[in-house]
Amino acid sequence: MRDSTKPLLRALTGEAVWPPPIWLMRQAGRYLPEYRAIRAGVADFIALCTTPELAAEVTLQPIRRYGFDAAILFSDILILPWALGHGLAFKEGEGPVLPKLRDAAGLAALDPNRVAAAVAPVMETVRRVRAGLASEGFGQTALIGFAGAPFTVACYMVEGGGSRDFAATRAMAYADPALFAGLMDMLTESTIEYLSAQAEAGAEALMLFDSWAGVLSPSLFRRHVIAPATRIVAALRQRHPGIPVIGFPRLGGLMVGAYGATGVNAIAMDTSMDLAQAAALVPDGVAVQGNLDPMALVAGGAALTGEAEAILRAMRGRPFIFNLGHGIVPQTTPAHVGALVEQVRAA
Amino acid sequence: MRDSTKPLLRALTGEAVWPPPIWLMRQAGRYLPEYRAIRAGVADFIALCTTPELAAEVTLQPIRRYGFDAAILFSDILILPWALGHGLAFKEGEGPVLPKLRDAAGLAALDPNRVAAAVAPVMETVRRVRAGLASEGFGQTALIGFAGAPFTVACYMVEGGGSRDFAATRAMAYADPALFAGLMDMLTESTIEYLSAQAEAGAEALMLFDSWAGVLSPSLFRRHVIAPATRIVAALRQRHPGIPVIGFPRLGGLMVGAYGATGVNAIAMDTSMDLAQAAALVPDGVAVQGNLDPMALVAGGAALTGEAEAILRAMRGRPFIFNLGHGIVPQTTPAHVGALVEQVRAA
Repeated sequence: MRDSTKPLLRALTGEAVWPPPIWLMRQAGRYLPEYRAIRAGVADFIALCTTPELAAEVTLQPIRRYGFDAAILFSDILILPWALGHGLAFKEGEGPVLPKLRDAAGLAALDPNRVAAAVAPVMETVRRVRAGLASEGFGQTALIGFAGAPFTVACYMVEGGGSRDFAATRAMAYADPALFAGLMDMLTESTIEYLSAQAEAGAEALMLFDSWAGVLSPSLFRRHVIAPATRIVAALRQRHPGIPVIGFPRLGGLMVGAYGATGVNAIAMDTSMDLAQAAALVPDGVAVQGNLDPMALVAGGAALTGEAEAILRAMRGRPFIFNLGHGIVPQTTPAHVGALVEQVRAA
Repeated sequence: MRDSTKPLLRALTGEAVWPPPIWLMRQAGRYLPEYRAIRAGVADFIALCTTPELAAEVTLQPIRRYGFDAAILFSDILILPWALGHGLAFKEGEGPVLPKLRDAAGLAALDPNRVAAAVAPVMETVRRVRAGLASEGFGQTALIGFAGAPFTVACYMVEGGGSRDFAATRAMAYADPALFAGLMDMLTESTIEYLSAQAEAGAEALMLFDSWAGVLSPSLFRRHVIAPATRIVAALRQRHPGIPVIGFPRLGGLMVGAYGATGVNAIAMDTSMDLAQAAALVPDGVAVQGNLDPMALVAGGAALTGEAEAILRAMRGRPFIFNLGHGIVPQTTPAHVGALVEQVRAA
């Protein structure tokens, strides 16, 4: 299933591929007119994520434009709570809105047995993207599947949506550790099943997005970020020997060194990280991914080339995957993305 | 002016005072009924900040309750843009609202010559708090003055209020570096004047809050966090030899080591920082301040004592000031604060 000549997969086995493979978080998205055209034709964001024909199409769009080294499944980190029956809506300009899980009854209402059927369309998307990459001649592009990490998914479920600091979630973790551990446990098990199904359907690498890891104190970070990631990586390796996993403990700062113990093949770094310093904290053979500021990509010009050049200089000679430190924003000019790919390919 | 027997000031000269001095960010605030009583009697938050009698009273309230080792001037990091004529309002539940500074005309409209008169009430508050601490018998409590660091103040001025990632500010820093440098320059100079006036009025230590330092890439962090802090510290030292400065590059993560070069006497750490690891990156003799999770203080009980104990254990034997990693939140039970102070004093 995995083609070891693909640059992304080589970097994930610890090879210092140069020029480095490149893909960009949220590379399929609103900055692309061809994405907006498809998005305009569906009722809502969840419909787009769960209609294989359309989800596969938008996954492939940026590959056709830029020839990225990875396609990433078009989906959302909140598809799992949706599949668990928790409820999910996306309100224009507001982001996700979910019921607030605050007690044992809320936890008991989640049903892991409905996940497999609910996410069946996602698996069909994975199969279609793999087939599309092959049939459209993108033999060097690997397909990444993904899930939200349990803590970040718990954040949205407890808070009922986005938040600057997820205070209610941290409050529950401190004040009702048994309830919170129960939620984390159920999410960890469901994440293993969900990612495992993606690997079976054809995902060649898996990424775990812990977007809100940085709101935790070191002790909670160990308990709710490092421990579940370690469990997920071990279970995936057992079921799919050799499957590479990329971990993204966003805003984890100094904890990035400890995160290396999870067994991931690569750690994605957010924009705040000094890559040379971060790489020194990461275990040998673990690749670094990141971390251009998406706003430098908006600016373009000298700001973009300067920031990209600093990253390339710091990472030359080590296993590295060029990416952003956060997702592409809608106001990005597509030509700037093209210029960046050209610069990285010429490194 | 500075009394070298006060525990906070001793820690700031690099002494490993034990038990460590303790104060808490936003210790004067809505969690205290006596604060709410005073707040209810004024028209708005700015009126409270600029009425010396009331601002001094709320500054002293938590000292009377808990006998903290530091009182911190009751004010706001946005008083400086307000004093520059930029405009500022606090809307209930929304936070600060400011005009959006997006061009050279916006910068030219700021008037540094009106700052001294506008902040005169703040200086009167400083004098009243110093006098109050002495007359009420708090001879061991030091008075900290403060300002927002230039980058964080610029964030609110450019964005027009709070934001999760201050995208417009970063966009300006990349796309119009000359305009942004002009704004940073004016804010840096004004901050020096503002903090210097606080020292003259009787502040015994000064703190620089860079609440949004963590949204910056390493190159912008060096330019817009480290460089201005270095300039501010040098200027303050020249005018007020020996005045201690505490820097708070919030969410700066790995950049905390580089921040040590600013010359600050102490670095305040946010909740995400592993203190033992952070302390190893900080220059010898520089104190560490922090970093209990405010939500552990909300929870109280075993969560609170456990988190506090981990911090105390990591910091024993080095210059350290116990604090939170972020401000006290309104729903905090005052008795939990009392229990924390007792635990730290018994360390």
